[in-house]
Amino acid sequence: MRVRILGIGMGPRHVTVEVADALRGCDYAVAVRKRDDDGLLALRRSVCDAFGVPLVTVADPERDRDDPADYPAAVADWHEARAVAFERVLVERGGTAAFLVWGDPSLYDSTLRIVERIAARGRTPVEYDVLPGISAPQILAARHGIVLHEVGRPVHVTPARRLREAVEAGQDNLVVMLGGRHGFEGLEDWTIWWGANLGTASEELVAGRLGDVRPDIDAARRRARDGAGWVMDTALLRRAS
Amino acid sequence: MRVRILGIGMGPRHVTVEVADALRGCDYAVAVRKRDDDGLLALRRSVCDAFGVPLVTVADPERDRDDPADYPAAVADWHEARAVAFERVLVERGGTAAFLVWGDPSLYDSTLRIVERIAARGRTPVEYDVLPGISAPQILAARHGIVLHEVGRPVHVTPARRLREAVEAGQDNLVVMLGGRHGFEGLEDWTIWWGANLGTASEELVAGRLGDVRPDIDAARRRARDGAGWVMDTALLRRAS
Repeated sequence: MRVRILGIGMGPRHVTVEVADALRGCDYAVAVRKRDDDGLLALRRSVCDAFGVPLVTVADPERDRDDPADYPAAVADWHEARAVAFERVLVERGGTAAFLVWGDPSLYDSTLRIVERIAARGRTPVEYDVLPGISAPQILAARHGIVLHEVGRPVHVTPARRLREAVEAGQDNLVVMLGGRHGFEGLEDWTIWWGANLGTASEELVAGRLGDVRPDIDAARRRARDGAGWVMDTALLRRAS
Repeated sequence: MRVRILGIGMGPRHVTVEVADALRGCDYAVAVRKRDDDGLLALRRSVCDAFGVPLVTVADPERDRDDPADYPAAVADWHEARAVAFERVLVERGGTAAFLVWGDPSLYDSTLRIVERIAARGRTPVEYDVLPGISAPQILAARHGIVLHEVGRPVHVTPARRLREAVEAGQDNLVVMLGGRHGFEGLEDWTIWWGANLGTASEELVAGRLGDVRPDIDAARRRARDGAGWVMDTALLRRAS
């Protein structure tokens, strides 16, 4: 059993030469089928169609989204459920399977951990490798025509739910992923470069002083969700110098 | 005058569909020609050859590498000298020029700032855009089969020269770029995932407890430099849990 974990950016235009070759060499791609984001599944299907690989979908296990106290444990339960669902497909079909990862497998994506779980469960031997893809912060920077940091300075990449603690710890240049509007309170004088559904037809961009452009971001986020049926936002936040 | 700033990862295999199309639509690509890294220029030329665009090279201006006290000012002088050198080519040739960026233009790359300087100088009107590419930390993560952070946690991306201050400020999960061996002292118990010349024929990988694998990294770094004539290293460092 061979699994290839392939970063696909935000669709066929972001696929690299090595990922295209890998896709063509796979027997099928597997993807979860959620109840409420047919737009994302369609985008994934467009990648499979572009490189001639059939797409096998599995129903997504339920996940407790109510921010439980033990967040890592809740995530682990959900990873295990996904691992079981994918394992069934791999055992039934055999051959080489592609897992298509939005953006890049190295940032806020669970595919690698799920494939490790399938291997650890031991029902089927799994050999896997990973190829990188274009991630949302890179598209954000390209669209705004910016570098993610000032000359020679760091950039702190964080999920939105940890933005507050990073700012309190003194970070002054942050990429915020997985829901870019939490924790914006008190940052009115910071500069924001914001984007939603980056690299897709429903892409939205806003930049400026956060206190000034906050209503623009809210409106743009609604447009992205209305246009696509889903919304994923990413932002760079920089303290006023 | 049109300029396209194109991320090319570490060579032709990392070029995306949209960058390939952009390259084919450019009249030429421009690149600096350094005295001592013909290997890197050859790699850049292989990208131009793969997508059928001629490569125009310009001599690289001198840069003071002795870590001057006023680092941003030294970088700014060097950016200005590069801007003047590139401006000459753009004015002579006209048309649409591609600037090929190793990795991704959003991380520790000066191309965007140099193109902004050419535009600001006002000798020639410049319209530019940016397309993202695969960056070294993504290749590092893919090769080691890892995610760059623990579940729901941040990752701090820093130049090696600022590693020490980031560790002292409490960062426990860091991507270190631009020379991955400075500031390793005292981090013997940390885990390191290290790579040099990632994505190229001279790629080297080492992972383990830093105190144990430090000699392996030194040896691998020498092999990379001997093999390619240049070495670029990137590392993920994580505090022992």
